[in-house]
Amino acid sequence: MKVLQIVGYKNSGKTTISKEVIAYFSSKHIKVGSLKHHGHGGIPHGLESTDSEQHRKAGAGVAGVWGENLFQLVQDNWDIADMLLIYEHLKIEFLVLEGFKKMAYPKLVLLRNQDDISLLASLENIIGIIKPNKLHVDSSTIPVFDLERPSLISEWVYQHYLRGGIR
Amino acid sequence: MKVLQIVGYKNSGKTTISKEVIAYFSSKHIKVGSLKHHGHGGIPHGLESTDSEQHRKAGAGVAGVWGENLFQLVQDNWDIADMLLIYEHLKIEFLVLEGFKKMAYPKLVLLRNQDDISLLASLENIIGIIKPNKLHVDSSTIPVFDLERPSLISEWVYQHYLRGGIR
Repeated sequence: MKVLQIVGYKNSGKTTISKEVIAYFSSKHIKVGSLKHHGHGGIPHGLESTDSEQHRKAGAGVAGVWGENLFQLVQDNWDIADMLLIYEHLKIEFLVLEGFKKMAYPKLVLLRNQDDISLLASLENIIGIIKPNKLHVDSSTIPVFDLERPSLISEWVYQHYLRGGIR
Repeated sequence: MKVLQIVGYKNSGKTTISKEVIAYFSSKHIKVGSLKHHGHGGIPHGLESTDSEQHRKAGAGVAGVWGENLFQLVQDNWDIADMLLIYEHLKIEFLVLEGFKKMAYPKLVLLRNQDDISLLASLENIIGIIKPNKLHVDSSTIPVFDLERPSLISEWVYQHYLRGGIR
């Protein structure tokens, strides 16, 4: 399974770019998965407040609920590697990871403004920079794209993938 | 991974018995998991109505959201075997399945009343029958337990597990 990360601060356009890349790769008959990190706190727990929360209190290490297309698993400490293995197990060929800044997979980085440029120095394995047309970003080594032209981005990512640039 | 099913109609006491068995097995330092089938319709979708639903519409075969202890996965056709493999992967040793009447794992069957007795004929691999004290159930081959004494049930299930009766 190949993994692409899409990172950037809030409201930088991550969902727009994710959707664009997902749509492009699935149009090429690649089985695409996505995983979004909801960040800390505030996740709207739903099902597990009922029976599966009771199972957890009784001592279940992993409590799950399945209904139609939704499978929800609750456990104390999720290991990202375990989540990725689940996608592999489900035969996903290309995974779009939104967030997870500290991981080392190839990354598209979204910048909103001048202040965000410092983000580039803190991230590993950046393959592309995406920024609003009005923001100027100097980069001699990493391709820079305009957020306003997402189809150019997904096409380039796909070519990069075909060249073996996403592992 | 050993799997025990707990089946019965609505309000037959499935959650009570699940909790009892989960608590007993985890007190024996066995890593217990639980999986509940929410039934058809009415599952309170939460997170995926936001970004992951957008990812799915864009073409993602599997869209997930993770935040703290909750990992939620959405895909079109869940295969129960895939869900069980996920629990195995998460190192669960003993899985309590609530519902999933058609599966062939060893089962505790809960009966509420005389009418429910017909359920016994439609299920495979029944290892125990649980019924209210006031209901009389005749069974020469399968142990019958009173719902009112759940600790006797979990102790018996554990002994049955130790004897290799749950595969």
